[in-house]
Amino acid sequence: MVIKKIQIGENLFAKNDEIADENRRIFVENQIFSINFMGSPGSGKTAILEKLIPELLKFNLSCGIIEGDIAGTFDGERIGRYGIPVVQINTGGACHLEAHMIRKGIENLPLSELDIVIVENVGNLVCPAEFKLGVDFNVTVTSTTEGEEKPVKYPLMYSISELILLNKIDLLGVLEFDIESFKNYVRRVNAEAEIIAVSGKTGENIGMLTRRIVKEAKIG
Amino acid sequence: MVIKKIQIGENLFAKNDEIADENRRIFVENQIFSINFMGSPGSGKTAILEKLIPELLKFNLSCGIIEGDIAGTFDGERIGRYGIPVVQINTGGACHLEAHMIRKGIENLPLSELDIVIVENVGNLVCPAEFKLGVDFNVTVTSTTEGEEKPVKYPLMYSISELILLNKIDLLGVLEFDIESFKNYVRRVNAEAEIIAVSGKTGENIGMLTRRIVKEAKIG
Repeated sequence: MVIKKIQIGENLFAKNDEIADENRRIFVENQIFSINFMGSPGSGKTAILEKLIPELLKFNLSCGIIEGDIAGTFDGERIGRYGIPVVQINTGGACHLEAHMIRKGIENLPLSELDIVIVENVGNLVCPAEFKLGVDFNVTVTSTTEGEEKPVKYPLMYSISELILLNKIDLLGVLEFDIESFKNYVRRVNAEAEIIAVSGKTGENIGMLTRRIVKEAKIG
Repeated sequence: MVIKKIQIGENLFAKNDEIADENRRIFVENQIFSINFMGSPGSGKTAILEKLIPELLKFNLSCGIIEGDIAGTFDGERIGRYGIPVVQINTGGACHLEAHMIRKGIENLPLSELDIVIVENVGNLVCPAEFKLGVDFNVTVTSTTEGEEKPVKYPLMYSISELILLNKIDLLGVLEFDIESFKNYVRRVNAEAEIIAVSGKTGENIGMLTRRIVKEAKIG
């Protein structure tokens, strides 16, 4: 997408960035820590959120969710069970969220009551990374089933993320996946990001993820 | 991507379609059956090709491969081991192949010596489906690790595919994945496509896939 977009519509990105900056101002004014979860379809973004949200609630942090999907409300319904405000955005074909969609989400959340807003982006390891949303903290979710070399094949998302979650470590026993090799590939495109290996299924290391987010939110 | 592109550059799609039609003419003139493998990063497209290609060679079908990746030559190198012509296309950021990139691939393959050209698209469950390439046969590769509901969440690719490959069935014993449920979701967006459950790791049902492709190529 980058090649075409740069040729024909640089002002599209400029307009997106402008709205993203406004989104960030709105989050700051409301003292909200905002997070953007990105990753492939099936990498386990929703499953991790299902484990993470109850942990954040234990820290008395109130969360709101903006769910991005091309179609359907599967993920919104899954997250809605936790009794927190969820806005489901259907992009109508677009393979990523853009800043103006986040604005729609913001307008439909009770901001003054929230400490954290989590965006779950459309499942896609490429395009979501190209669009600034105005959030504080980018997370790439990948899974042990996807292969160690993905950071080098899809470098942009990994390079802009503050945190990389390696999900589905419960499957390590049956897969040929080498965590050290994966970490080395991450380091080639991002020397700074923290990498946490988790399981959205068993909940392993979700406590570590929770503490990192609480710390980043500067509330814990 | 659809929303923006339709607004600002319908002629981009028209130009792509024009080149795609030319690609198809070139394939027909050279009596080549052409296939486009699409699917998420890590769904196992390359692993399936590694099992499929030796089987096609047994039918005395000569294959050429066009490998699409944003960056790197991992997949090209893996496929190159089979001693067949491979063209690696790096899209330089673009999250999909377009018809003009396929043209570049065609120009670098010994067409008169080939029976089948297989395109391995960039790993992405969304955008590659939006761009006609001029190939005969679209295949969506998905895996048991991605969840049963993906056809409904990402309907376009499933809806334009003649064949859906459900990969990684070797993991069925350790995953909560219901094949019948997956098939029902596929049927909601595509009533016609054949679904073949395979394992790129163990080779299970690769024979069935091979026979289907040989049949489609009208050579077997």
